[in-house]
Amino acid sequence: MPSVTGTNAHPCPASAESVPIYFCPKSAALMKATTSILRPFVNIVQSRAFNSVLSLEPSGPTVKTEIPGPKSKQLIAELQKTQNAQSTAFILDVDKSIGNYCVDVDGNVLLDVYEQIASLPLGYNHPSITQVFTDPKNLSQLVNRPALGVNPTPQYVKQIEQTLHPIAPKGMDHIQPMMCGSCSNENAFKAICIWYAEKQRNGKPHTEEELQSTLLNKAPGSPNVTLMSFEGGFHGRTIGALACTHSKAIHKLDIPTFDWPIAPFPRYKYPLEENERENKKEDERCLARIEELFHEYNKNNKPVVGAIVEPVQSEGGDYHGSKEFFQNLQRIIKKNGAALLIDEVQTGLGATGKFWAHEHFSLPESPDLVTFSKKFQTGGYFAKKEFNPKQPYRIFNTWMGEPSKLLVLDAILKTVKNENLIENTRKTGDVLLNGLKDLSKKYPNLILNTRGLGTFCAFDMKNSSVRDKFTTKMRNAAVMIGPCGDVSIRFRPALIFTEKHANIFLDKMNEVVKNF
Amino acid sequence: MPSVTGTNAHPCPASAESVPIYFCPKSAALMKATTSILRPFVNIVQSRAFNSVLSLEPSGPTVKTEIPGPKSKQLIAELQKTQNAQSTAFILDVDKSIGNYCVDVDGNVLLDVYEQIASLPLGYNHPSITQVFTDPKNLSQLVNRPALGVNPTPQYVKQIEQTLHPIAPKGMDHIQPMMCGSCSNENAFKAICIWYAEKQRNGKPHTEEELQSTLLNKAPGSPNVTLMSFEGGFHGRTIGALACTHSKAIHKLDIPTFDWPIAPFPRYKYPLEENERENKKEDERCLARIEELFHEYNKNNKPVVGAIVEPVQSEGGDYHGSKEFFQNLQRIIKKNGAALLIDEVQTGLGATGKFWAHEHFSLPESPDLVTFSKKFQTGGYFAKKEFNPKQPYRIFNTWMGEPSKLLVLDAILKTVKNENLIENTRKTGDVLLNGLKDLSKKYPNLILNTRGLGTFCAFDMKNSSVRDKFTTKMRNAAVMIGPCGDVSIRFRPALIFTEKHANIFLDKMNEVVKNF
Repeated sequence: MPSVTGTNAHPCPASAESVPIYFCPKSAALMKATTSILRPFVNIVQSRAFNSVLSLEPSGPTVKTEIPGPKSKQLIAELQKTQNAQSTAFILDVDKSIGNYCVDVDGNVLLDVYEQIASLPLGYNHPSITQVFTDPKNLSQLVNRPALGVNPTPQYVKQIEQTLHPIAPKGMDHIQPMMCGSCSNENAFKAICIWYAEKQRNGKPHTEEELQSTLLNKAPGSPNVTLMSFEGGFHGRTIGALACTHSKAIHKLDIPTFDWPIAPFPRYKYPLEENERENKKEDERCLARIEELFHEYNKNNKPVVGAIVEPVQSEGGDYHGSKEFFQNLQRIIKKNGAALLIDEVQTGLGATGKFWAHEHFSLPESPDLVTFSKKFQTGGYFAKKEFNPKQPYRIFNTWMGEPSKLLVLDAILKTVKNENLIENTRKTGDVLLNGLKDLSKKYPNLILNTRGLGTFCAFDMKNSSVRDKFTTKMRNAAVMIGPCGDVSIRFRPALIFTEKHANIFLDKMNEVVKNF
Repeated sequence: MPSVTGTNAHPCPASAESVPIYFCPKSAALMKATTSILRPFVNIVQSRAFNSVLSLEPSGPTVKTEIPGPKSKQLIAELQKTQNAQSTAFILDVDKSIGNYCVDVDGNVLLDVYEQIASLPLGYNHPSITQVFTDPKNLSQLVNRPALGVNPTPQYVKQIEQTLHPIAPKGMDHIQPMMCGSCSNENAFKAICIWYAEKQRNGKPHTEEELQSTLLNKAPGSPNVTLMSFEGGFHGRTIGALACTHSKAIHKLDIPTFDWPIAPFPRYKYPLEENERENKKEDERCLARIEELFHEYNKNNKPVVGAIVEPVQSEGGDYHGSKEFFQNLQRIIKKNGAALLIDEVQTGLGATGKFWAHEHFSLPESPDLVTFSKKFQTGGYFAKKEFNPKQPYRIFNTWMGEPSKLLVLDAILKTVKNENLIENTRKTGDVLLNGLKDLSKKYPNLILNTRGLGTFCAFDMKNSSVRDKFTTKMRNAAVMIGPCGDVSIRFRPALIFTEKHANIFLDKMNEVVKNF
C-alpha cells in the first residue's frame, strides 16, 4: 500500500518556476498554456495537509451575484434541454473550489456545509486526494478498471486487507465493495435473504423445484420474504432500496413496490433533557409496534428476514433514535431470527464524532451488516462472516466496486487519522451545536429542535416554506446548506470544518435570521 | 471539450531520458525509483493510437505456469478470507497488460477475448485513456466528484452535449447518466412507470391518497404495474433488475421478486439459412405469447407498462432475435400503450459492427429508451423526451454518474471514430465467424451453432461440463475466454482486436480442440 500522505509524499518545489508534478518538463508549449490554470494545484501539492489546505482558503465567503447567477442560469438552461435540471442549485467551478469553500461559475465563494450531499470528507482539492491522481504508481490502476469478481488485482487484494479491513466494525470480517449506496443496500439485503434461506434449508442443497420456479419469479425459489424498514427512512432509489424508503412521496410515486413491514421510528421532543419521560414512551411505542410487525408478517407467511435502519434518519429529517431504542431493536431482531442491517451511507466516516455513528449506541454486539458509500467514495458493506454466500455469483456484478476509489479512500483514511479529523469534528460539533442552541433561544419561533452528534447537526423550522426561504437566503449569503425531511435543515460539512468555520457560519446565520 | 486524441495530444519525447508526462522533473529520487515501472507508459504516450498500441503488444500469448498460477492462487486465498473469491480466474497485473493482452501476476500473457466481461473497448493501457489521467486540465475533475443533481460542473454540461448527445439513437434527446448497468435499468424502468402514470393521470396532479399511500408501499400511490421481460434475459442483479433477469437460477434464488410477465425469446436453429421456415415459426410462437401476456396482465389489473429486452441475450447464452422479431415486438408494445426499453449494456459501443446493436433491426422508429454501461465506463440511458419526468427528484441520487468517467468515454469515442474501430470490428468479425464456422465443420460434435454480429460471436458446446473444460483448456493455452448461458462460449474482444488477433485465436483454438 503506497503511502500517499506520509513521509514519502512527493515534495514538489514551491518556486514560481515550478511545474505540477504530473507534467512533462520538455513540453514547454503546453506548460505555458496551462500554468496559470494549474497554479492552485502547485500550491496545494506543496502543502501537506489539513492546516495547509485551510491556509489556501479564502478568509470567508463572498457573494458577487444572486445565486444561481447569470452564468449558472445559462448552463442550467443548457442542461435542461436534455434532462430535468430543476434540482440544480448552481454550477460548480471545481478548479477554484478549495477546502470548505465551493466556488460557482459566477465567482461566488460559498462556505459549504452540505459538501455534495455529505459526500466530500476532505472538502475540495485536498492535497491528499490530488496526490492519488498525480502519483505515477497509481496510473495503471486509474486507467484499467477490472471486473473484480473475475480478475482482481494484487493492489485490490491489499486494499481489502489494509484499507477496508481496519475500518470494519468489530466482528465483521466479510467485506464486499460495491458502486454506490443504493446498490450496497440492495446487495446487503440479498445477502440477508440468502443467509436466511440457507438457515431454513439447514445444509440441504436447492431443490429442483426451487431452481425452476425462481427463473419464473415464483416461490419457492423466489420466496415471499420481507425486510422491515422505518417510517421516514431513506435507503436509496433502486426498486429494492426504494421499497425501504419512506421519506418523501415524490421519491416513490408511480413505482411498483413490495408489501413489506414499515415500523415507526422515534420522534422525540426537544430539548431531550426536559422530555425524558415522554421520549422513553415514544421508544416503547415504536418497539412495541416492531414486535407486532414481526408477529403479523411471520404469521402471514411473509417472514421478516431482517430490518434496515439508519443510525440517524438523514434524508427524512435528521431524526435520532436513543441508545436504548437501538439496543432493544437489536434484541427484538435477534429474538426473531432476523438480521440487523445498519445503513451508514450518510452517517459513516466520522461526521457524528465517531467513525461509525452506530458506535454511539453501545450495542451489546456489532450489527449483522453495515453499508457505506458517499464519503467513502466507493459503496460497499461489512458483514459478519455468515453473510458471505457459500456459492460464487450470488453477490456479483461486472465491476463490484473500483480499485481507483479505494486508492482515494485510503488517502482519505490516512488523512483523517494523521490529522485527528474525527476529534476535530467532535470539537467543532460542540461549537456548532451550542451556537445553534443559542440562536434557537434568541429566535425560538424560527429555530426549533436543535440536535446533533459531532457536526452532524440539524434544526427544524415552522414549515417547509419557511425552511425553503431560509435555505435560499443562506445561499445568497454565500452559505451552501441543505434541507432534509419536510421542515429540517441539515449540516453536512467536511471533516476539515473547524471552529473558525463554525463561527463564520453562525455569524452568517445570525445575520440572516435577524433580517428574516 | 478538450481534444485528448487529436492534434493537441501531448507530444512527449521518446528518448531514454524522457520522463512520464505527469512527473515532476525536480524530484529525482522518486523519478529514479519508478522509472522502470513507468517505461511502458512512456512508450504508450509516445504512440498515438490503435496501430501504435498494437506495436507494443507481444507477438502472441505465452504460458509460464498453469492458470491460475501459484502467485494468483496465493492472492485468491487472501481474498477468500473476506469475500467469496471462487469466481476469480486469476490475478491481473494491470501494469504489464497491454492492448489485447492481459498479463497475470505469474507472468502468463493471455490473448484476451473477454476483456473484463466486455467492459474494455480499447484493451489495456491504451494511450488515449492514459492521457485522460495525465492531462493536467482534467485533474480537478478527477479529484472532486460532484453531486450532479445539485452542483453539476460546466465540464459536465459540455459532456452531455458533446460526448453523449452525438451518440444518442435518433429521436432520443433525454440523457440521464447513471453509475452502472443495473442502476441504469432500474432508473429507466422508473422513468417508464412515471411516464405511464402521467399518461393515465392526464395532466392532473397526484391525489392526496396517492401521496399518502405510496409512503406505506400501497396502491394507488405505489401501483401494481408490471414490466415484461424475457426468458433467458439478463438485466442486472439489484432487486428491480433481478425481477427481469432469467438467465441463471443462482442469480435469483432466495431473493423476493415481483409477479411480472415473462415472455419467450426466440431460440433459433443454426445455420440460419437452412432453417428459415422453422425460425420464422419460432418468432411467431414468441410474438403470440407476448400478445397473450399483455392481454392477461392488463386484464388482471397488472398493467404492462413496458418491456425490457437485449438485442442479443448476452449473459443468457448469446441468443439472437431476428429483425422481424424486434420489429413486431415494437409494434405489439406500441399497440398496447407500453414502452420499449432496449438494454445495450453489453451490446452497445460497436462490438456488433454497429454502434448500437439495435441498429441491425431497422426498427420503424427508435426504441423508447436505451440503457448502456460497461464499455461506456459510465452507466446511463437515452430516452425520448416524454420519459424525462416533469418534477425534479424523481430520477435522482447522490452522484448520478461521474464526470471523470465521461472524460474517459469522450477519449474512447474519439479513438473509435478516428481509428475506424467499428469498421475494424466488422472486418475482424468476418474473419472470426468464418474461422469458427470452419472449425465447426471440422469438429461438428464439439462446436455447435456458431453465430455472431461483428466480433460479438458465440458458439455452443454439447453440455456445460464440456464447455467448462474447453474454457479451462483455452485459458491454459493463454486465451482468456468467457462462458455464457448453460453451454455457450462468448467472444467479447476489444474493438482493437484485428484479423491478426483473430487468426492467433483460431490457431490456438484449433490446437485445443484437436487434442480435446
